[in-house]
Amino acid sequence: MAVVTFLSDYGLDDDFVGVCHGVIARIAPQARVIDVTHGIARHDVRAGALVLERALGYMPAGVHLAVVDPEVGGARRAVALRCAQEERLLVGPDNGLLSLAAKRFGGVVEAVEIGRSPLRLEPVSASFHGRDVFAPVAAHLAAGTIALAAGGARLDPGELVQLVLPRARATDAGLVAHVLHADRYGNVVLDAGRADLAAAGLRFARALTVNGRRALFATTFADVAAGELVLYEDGYRVLSLAVNRGSALDALGLEVDDEIVIATAS
Amino acid sequence: MAVVTFLSDYGLDDDFVGVCHGVIARIAPQARVIDVTHGIARHDVRAGALVLERALGYMPAGVHLAVVDPEVGGARRAVALRCAQEERLLVGPDNGLLSLAAKRFGGVVEAVEIGRSPLRLEPVSASFHGRDVFAPVAAHLAAGTIALAAGGARLDPGELVQLVLPRARATDAGLVAHVLHADRYGNVVLDAGRADLAAAGLRFARALTVNGRRALFATTFADVAAGELVLYEDGYRVLSLAVNRGSALDALGLEVDDEIVIATAS
Amino acid sequence: MAVVTFLSDYGLDDDFVGVCHGVIARIAPQARVIDVTHGIARHDVRAGALVLERALGYMPAGVHLAVVDPEVGGARRAVALRCAQEERLLVGPDNGLLSLAAKRFGGVVEAVEIGRSPLRLEPVSASFHGRDVFAPVAAHLAAGTIALAAGGARLDPGELVQLVLPRARATDAGLVAHVLHADRYGNVVLDAGRADLAAAGLRFARALTVNGRRALFATTFADVAAGELVLYEDGYRVLSLAVNRGSALDALGLEVDDEIVIATAS
Repeated sequence: MAVVTFLSDYGLDDDFVGVCHGVIARIAPQARVIDVTHGIARHDVRAGALVLERALGYMPAGVHLAVVDPEVGGARRAVALRCAQEERLLVGPDNGLLSLAAKRFGGVVEAVEIGRSPLRLEPVSASFHGRDVFAPVAAHLAAGTIALAAGGARLDPGELVQLVLPRARATDAGLVAHVLHADRYGNVVLDAGRADLAAAGLRFARALTVNGRRALFATTFADVAAGELVLYEDGYRVLSLAVNRGSALDALGLEVDDEIVIATAS
Repeated sequence: MAVVTFLSDYGLDDDFVGVCHGVIARIAPQARVIDVTHGIARHDVRAGALVLERALGYMPAGVHLAVVDPEVGGARRAVALRCAQEERLLVGPDNGLLSLAAKRFGGVVEAVEIGRSPLRLEPVSASFHGRDVFAPVAAHLAAGTIALAAGGARLDPGELVQLVLPRARATDAGLVAHVLHADRYGNVVLDAGRADLAAAGLRFARALTVNGRRALFATTFADVAAGELVLYEDGYRVLSLAVNRGSALDALGLEVDDEIVIATAS
Repeated sequence: MAVVTFLSDYGLDDDFVGVCHGVIARIAPQARVIDVTHGIARHDVRAGALVLERALGYMPAGVHLAVVDPEVGGARRAVALRCAQEERLLVGPDNGLLSLAAKRFGGVVEAVEIGRSPLRLEPVSASFHGRDVFAPVAAHLAAGTIALAAGGARLDPGELVQLVLPRARATDAGLVAHVLHADRYGNVVLDAGRADLAAAGLRFARALTVNGRRALFATTFADVAAGELVLYEDGYRVLSLAVNRGSALDALGLEVDDEIVIATAS
């Protein structure tokens, strides 16, 4: 049974997601659609790319449809991509959304531009390419009735838009990291792993400060008292900040891309 | 594989939607359920009817379950309907919710009142007919084990409740249209199409005013700068108002049913 | 076709739910997953237990996965349970979440501790046991490739954590009941049924007071005018408070566990 996974910033208040499911079901009645999430913040391409990158490894290999598309109707390309590993196919706008997931699966070995794909639903609207372009192409690929090359115009994978992310760095003042993303609980995902901490001379289970505020480096937020700040490896092996039964985002007054300094508590 | 589509105002915070899925799965294990949306504003029959009308064309033909039912437990009828086209079956309360979709598929050729259907779950609760009446009837119809006529008491389709919508009109002051509906982004759907604009002497790509505020008639909101107002044909070929990366609803202080005047900018 | 039902407090804004669906699909591609709800308030084990108890009777028998897990990564046990009736299997944390549903299906006849199950995804994260422990075990059980006893270490069902709920009681002042739970509409579920009302000498359709405020005991909130308070049997045969087209929770200023007094209006 073919699988289509689906991630977007459409939310579930409107019928956008449902209509895309309908379009897929009409074209590929046997395909199973798994919703990764539709709760990506509106137009937040980076959050979508990060979630897609980490989630797809837990999804069956198949066609991975993703739509976070602030420039819909503009000049950005619409693309379908084949990754080097597991024959994973990615379908979505070429704005960096797919780039981290593509790298995760060995890079792109075949790419087509699908903005004028013969598989589109006609007439194509200016604002709902999820329904008219991306979902139909994903469904046809899942149905196996067409090869990727027949889905659009061949494109050099080297021309695809790549997402540029901030990078944590060790300094004399400690580890300077950045807020990559936050979940609904206010847990903050950083652009750093355990190795970055070690490179900055910081050790596990040592008392730390984060932006001057005391924090514990622990296994999970259950290791600290309610209201306390904890630095931990999250479910995806990435360093994260949390407040047990609270919100680290609010407690530290952080926003995405903010710099934070992690240091040894004096 | 039989398809049941499902639209409601139940939201996803509670178990209402999940329980209806369970009821359907017990009666029709082979049926596939596609959620159109459960984010219709509570008790907003008209929004439900409009979303259903435009979404169903993208759904596989099947049984289309819809529940926005402010008078549940009161005197309103519960109905199952067969449309003239594509053998589409509609199941829900008879309060206008199904009326636009029925018209879209050629009108109703067979109707039954299912409030006392032998297919109900007993005992029927006073407040959760989605679970006890509508979902079981929809599931039995999808399973194909029963004909529509056996689902309830025959009803004259002419007696079904019809939704009355406002109508845009051309005036000396310009096109007077109404707010039919707004999505979560604050994009405003009007009761007018391109032909209505033309009838009022307004032209594509001309500078316009909407309630005295400058707007551009363009292909999509990507055609205007962030924060600017744009009038465009939405994904369903209906005129809509948007603010690029903002909310037209908020920018113009609009509510559903409000009248707006579209005129040529002087 | 095997069924896995899934309830959690993960919400749909992030990819937690989607990733668990992916994990299940990889292990048990033929299993059908039905989402009960993921809108349980964060860490509200009791709300999860109550919703699970009442919803499962409407779900096909199968594997019932539930994750509301404030102590994830701490000392609480992870368990898989077989109920006496219908071969229902429950999978989740042993914090009382599963206890009401287990009782509903005749009690637990077989229990295993799955925290170190050979079926886990390695490496197990400290904070996402839904993905790494519960979903994999549920999926393997649904796939039928493994017996419950092979899923973990045998556990005495008598050691499982039981949820303790408040109990309504008849007093001279009337029926003293408690707020068990509230839905998104502000409808308040009480820990009392019709028999408790009768035991306190209160009768159907009689004018009552709830915390001193007039209320009607009626069949449904459609029986009272907009804004009025009504006491009724909800869709699960439990006494509930509602305000027609409003919120009883807000109108009475209630919170979960609050005591309310229902008396005859003088």
